[in-house]
Formats: sequence, structure tokens, C-alpha cells
Amino acid sequence: MIERLMTPSTTPDIRDSDDPLAPYRERFDLPEGVIYLDGNSLGPLPRGVSDRVAATVADQWGTSLIRGWNDHAWMDLPTTVGDKIARLIGAPAGSVVAGDSTSINVFKALSAALRLRPGRTTILSDTGNFPTDLYVAQELAALLGSGYQLETVTPDAVESRIDADVAVVMLTEVDYRTGRRHDMKALTRAAHAAGALIIWDLAHSAGAFPVHLQDCGADFAVGCGYKYLNGGPGALAFLFVAPEHQAHLRPAIAGWMGHDAPFAFDPDYRPAPDIRRMQVGTPPILAMAALDAALDVFADVDMEAVRRKSVALCNLFIDEVERRCPQLELVTPREADRRGSQVSFRTPEGYAMMQALIAHGVIGDFRAPDIMRFGFTPLYLRYHDVIAAAEMLERVVNERLWDQEQFRHRRKVT
Amino acid sequence: MIERLMTPSTTPDIRDSDDPLAPYRERFDLPEGVIYLDGNSLGPLPRGVSDRVAATVADQWGTSLIRGWNDHAWMDLPTTVGDKIARLIGAPAGSVVAGDSTSINVFKALSAALRLRPGRTTILSDTGNFPTDLYVAQELAALLGSGYQLETVTPDAVESRIDADVAVVMLTEVDYRTGRRHDMKALTRAAHAAGALIIWDLAHSAGAFPVHLQDCGADFAVGCGYKYLNGGPGALAFLFVAPEHQAHLRPAIAGWMGHDAPFAFDPDYRPAPDIRRMQVGTPPILAMAALDAALDVFADVDMEAVRRKSVALCNLFIDEVERRCPQLELVTPREADRRGSQVSFRTPEGYAMMQALIAHGVIGDFRAPDIMRFGFTPLYLRYHDVIAAAEMLERVVNERLWDQEQFRHRRKVT
Repeated sequence: MIERLMTPSTTPDIRDSDDPLAPYRERFDLPEGVIYLDGNSLGPLPRGVSDRVAATVADQWGTSLIRGWNDHAWMDLPTTVGDKIARLIGAPAGSVVAGDSTSINVFKALSAALRLRPGRTTILSDTGNFPTDLYVAQELAALLGSGYQLETVTPDAVESRIDADVAVVMLTEVDYRTGRRHDMKALTRAAHAAGALIIWDLAHSAGAFPVHLQDCGADFAVGCGYKYLNGGPGALAFLFVAPEHQAHLRPAIAGWMGHDAPFAFDPDYRPAPDIRRMQVGTPPILAMAALDAALDVFADVDMEAVRRKSVALCNLFIDEVERRCPQLELVTPREADRRGSQVSFRTPEGYAMMQALIAHGVIGDFRAPDIMRFGFTPLYLRYHDVIAAAEMLERVVNERLWDQEQFRHRRKVT
Repeated sequence: MIERLMTPSTTPDIRDSDDPLAPYRERFDLPEGVIYLDGNSLGPLPRGVSDRVAATVADQWGTSLIRGWNDHAWMDLPTTVGDKIARLIGAPAGSVVAGDSTSINVFKALSAALRLRPGRTTILSDTGNFPTDLYVAQELAALLGSGYQLETVTPDAVESRIDADVAVVMLTEVDYRTGRRHDMKALTRAAHAAGALIIWDLAHSAGAFPVHLQDCGADFAVGCGYKYLNGGPGALAFLFVAPEHQAHLRPAIAGWMGHDAPFAFDPDYRPAPDIRRMQVGTPPILAMAALDAALDVFADVDMEAVRRKSVALCNLFIDEVERRCPQLELVTPREADRRGSQVSFRTPEGYAMMQALIAHGVIGDFRAPDIMRFGFTPLYLRYHDVIAAAEMLERVVNERLWDQEQFRHRRKVT
């Protein structure tokens, strides 16, 4: 591990004293001497998670053993956790189930959606979508044969490309590299107008800003538990299915937890009448407990206030960095309405610059081939953190602190 | 919760003093006053798991944050944990990956296997297979269309049914209700002789007795982390793929963690050359840590010794129960070679009897419609526990302790 060379400065900022979200920072266990601008990749540890996980291991599993399924309502966790997420993404209770990985949930949503539009063979996505979504679609199309195909167009061209052959439009709302945000309402309307269904990947949306799935009329959505929801490394993901589809769709991966009566041990699959049919295997309780406790952070959070502060933090960072480092190219839309809660800059030496920045206590991340990505999470970031991060970036760039062999060495996970 | 009425007796037994596995009991945190015969449903908490999970949460996630992926080799856990499991099931290093649920892994194995046998359309299984395996096969066949179908025959009829239309034989080695064990070597040979592939579900095998996947020539295997491997409620599962198939199979669920270079963010899927291609989403690190620590219990365990004691415990329980409760019908094969590590009795009042038994401190489980199931786990069960359990069962049955309304009430999870 590279030794930290210095700690970023932390000059007080008047905006922090006036910040209604400032108290939420106390809900996280944040390491000293670090400005964390990577909560969009892995959220930090919320207070309460350690104790909840420890109790689940020692008191629930260790003491109740198999009786834990009844004594601690483990079987209900996928939907109780799902309901907590639902509140953050504008979905009604009973429409979200937590479990599996985001990739698996993309497969579940896409395979179900395609069967709701027989005769149509195109899955439409954009070239900026996260690769795993595209891989799932490519290989599901190959598995199904019969002319199914994934077609990708540039993000701006999606709306005009939707036609009567498109079965499903599958988009990630916020581009993982640029931070560009799709217009969920307009694209959902366009998909429906052409008779297609739409799947929204909320990996960079859930917990980052208010999402209005039901208002927009979305059919399916998936999302990630380990980014803005702070559920821990590789946390469980979630799946939303609009109520009107739940009883009609046929799960491609049919597991016993999706059966109407799992403990009847019926040899024939008969799906549960509701969102539970999208469950597959036995719910992973330790991971569920971590995500459940992490979501308690959001219990009384005003997501509109989160969005206001997110916009302010992103604007501040853009201003500070552009002023200090004009050689960095902003790739995130300048208009707040067109972006999520991250800011990205492009530069050929982005990899080494990000490694140097991390070594100096400002943690963002790098996305190949040349993007430095910074996530802004209003519940624990302060305005003075943003200024200090920009100051450190300025030093890394302008004093060429990045120009060392140790920072050019590519690590396994970037 | 029903209050415990009495604690089973614990008269010392000479066989416990002579037991070479006796010291392993200290590796588990077992609650007082309970005889746990349900480690085949949910294994108890191994010592070391609490600390490992706590450290993963607070020290790794909490302190390293995103750097944990490099600092703590999180990305390698699916294969390092897989290698620990490989040793227990007679599989070579590099042939097992841990992750997802058993049901998801059945889907992954079956979809891959079917594509290795184009032109054949029958998935052959037996009527005693665990329902989730059958559901996965039924609905995968429906998804694929083109004449694919699941056919089930009685366990004894599997071998003679295998013909040139069978693409994949998919069996659970040990029947979850009866404990009957298939002949892995003979059935694998029969499948191959007919040109079919075989998938073994090791849910009730891995960690219960020595498994010899490679010696038997098995093509695929899946298994469960929360039974005999003690990885916790809903623990991660595992998938074995024989080395000769790894580079040829095409994953149906293609996720970024199965890509040859996940962090290149290539828009086109290009599978990793080895077992890693069967990975899908981001590995769930808290659950991985729990399973990894649980597997350390087995580091120096002689699985042949485990099997010898398992046979002795099962024989002892059968003898004691049949002598005391002749009205219970043994449904597990009497010949040790034909069973796993459980003993099941059939009786119309099995549900209430099991609830009464649990209330009296002997925990087994019930499987609809009429089976009381007892798992025997040699690492922490003593001979005197087995006798005490039989004594308590005798009282429950012969003193009609089960004949109370509280024990007839069906709970959610049985």
C-alpha cells in the first residue's frame, strides 16, 4: 500500500454550518484523513451496520439456529428491505425485492420483459451503458436465438431509434463514466408509445437523488446495494416490477423462494402471485442484515434536500477544478438536470493522477480509458471537503505529483 | 416462541471418549441445552466466523473503503473459497467458484450443459430431487422452447432411462427427504455412455462425507454453503465445472465478473478462459468472508473419519429409535452405502411431533407431507447426544407430548 504523503486541508466553510444535512455525517463511520469521493462505487460503513451484522451472526444464527427463519422473520427480509428501497425510488410498497446481484437482476428483468412482448426481437440500449448490462443482454439474446439481438446506439439517439421491433428499452439512468442522466419520463413515454417495455438500471440513482419510477410509468428497474445505499462490498441488489406486470410475467430463473408455497415442496413450479415470484434461492441473511441496517440511514432523509446539496457540491467541484486545472476536460453535463451525482474529467494521465490523488487522501476512481470519476454523496460530504479535494487535485496535476512509477502501475481493480 | 420444557439427558458415552473427531466440537459456538440435528438444513456458527465478519465490516470495508478490493484481495475470494470447497468434494484447484445461490448455480450449470449437447432436448432428473432444481429445469426448458423438456423418473429408474435424447442428467446425490444416496460413479458412467452430461447437486453431500467428483468424471456440480459447510443462513453456494469443459462452455448469464478483463469495460462480452467465466456480478464480500472462515473448520479434517463417524451416528440413531418407537417408519436406506448423513422417519403426525421435539430441545426438521428428518454432523455431535435425542423422541411419541394445539400450528418456515 502506498503511504499517504499528506492530509488534505480542512478549512471551515460557511455552507457547512448552514447545511440541514450536516448531522447525517454522524451516521457513518468514516476513516480519518480521507476525503471519500467514491461512495458511488462503494458506500462507506453506516453506523449501526457492525452491530446489526454482529447480532445477526451471534444472536440470531448462533443461538436460534434453524429457528431463526421464524424467530427473526428472515424470510421476510427480501421484501421488507425491498420496501425500504421502494421509498427512495418512487415505487409502491410490494414492488421491490432485494436479493442477488445487479447483473442477475438485469437477467431476471430482461428475460421477463422479453416474454411480455412476443414477436419483437430487439433489445435497445445505449453505448454508454455499464458493460455488465450489455453482456447480459448479448448473451440472453444468444441463448434465446430466434432473431433476438441487442442493439446499442449513442445515448442521444435512443429515443428516435425506438420502433415497433423494439421489445425492451434497457437503460442505465446515469452513465457510470460521464454522469450524464437520461430523461426517465420522456424515454419511458417513448418506449410505451412504440409498444415497448422499459428497464431502468438505477445503479447510480438509488440513494443519490429522488427517483420517480411509478410517476414515470417504468416497467422494471434494477439497482445496486453497495453504492449510494451503502450496503457493503458486493451488497445485495434489488429488482422493481411494476404492479401491473407482477402477476403476468414468467420468471426465467424459477427458484423455490419464488414458488407460491415454498415449503409445500411441490414438484411443479407455481409462481407466487406477487413480487415474490422474482425471488430465486434462499435469501442471504447476513448480507440482508447489512443492507437493511444501512438503509436505516435513509429513514428520515428528505431526498429532495439530498438532491439540492448534491447539485451544489457538484457545481462547486466543477467550478473549483476548472479554475485550478483548465487542462482537465469536463465530461459530465454542466446542466444539473442532465447529470446524476458525480463529476468526471477526462485526461490521458487519468490513471496515474487518480492513484496519486488517492495516495494523498482524496479517494475517487478511474474508469478506462481516461476518466477520473468523483462521486458526491450529500449525507457525509461537506463543502469544505469538496474544496480541499479540488486543492489536492490541483497539486497532483500542476505539481506533477502523479508522474511517478508507483502511480502508473496498474492494480488489479481500478 | 414455545418455552423449552426440559433439557435432554446427557449421560456420558464411552464412544465419545474414543472419538478422534471429538475435539472439533470446540470449533463451534453451540447454544446450551440443545441437541442440534439440523446442521443439514442450517449449520451452526463456527468459532472464528463472528470475528472474521466483524473485521471484514469494520476494518476492511470501514477503513479501506474502495481500496479493500486491492488491499484485501476481495476479488479473489470466489476462487480462493472455491478452492477450499474443491478439496472437500474431490475437485481440482481452479474448478470451483463460490457465489450466488444454489438455485442460480443450477441454472448456470444446466444452461451451460444443454448448450454442450445441441440436438438433445431432454433433461433427466428424479422425482425425489429438491423442488428448486426441478423448477429451474422446468422453466429453463420453457424459456428455450425447441422441444426442451424436463423428465422425471423414480430414483431407481434413472439409470435405465438414459438414452440418446438425454442432454443432461441432473441429480441431487442425497435425497433431501429420505437421505437415499445415488451411486455417483455408476450414474456418471451411464450418462457418459449415452453421450449425456451430468450435473450433481451436492447440497447434502459437501462437508457431510467425501465426494469424488473428479474420480467419478462428473461434468458439473453445485452445492450449498449453509448446510454442512456452516456458512450461515442463506450462505453463498458453489459451482464446479470439470476442467475440460471450462473453456468451451458459454455462460447464459454473462456478467462483468465473468469477463476476461472486467476493468477494461469492454462493450463486448469475452469470457474469462477458466472457471471465472461462471461468475456473474460483484462478489458479496461479507457473505464470502463468513463462508471462508467457516471452511477453515475443515482445514485439517479427515473426511474419511467424518464418514466413519457419520455412519456410526446414523446407525446408532436408527437402532435406538426403532427399538423405542416401532410405530415410526424408517424411510432412509438401512445400508450405509446407500445413504448420506441423515435419517428420516415417516409418520402422519410428523409435523406436530417435530415441533414438540424442538420445544424439548432436540432440533430436527420436518419435510412435507410426513417426514421427520434428522441430520448427523460428526464434527460437533456426540454419541450421547444421539442417544439423548432418541430418548426424547421416545417420550414425545409414546407419551403423546406432541398432541397439543401449539405443536399443530403450522409455522411459516417448516
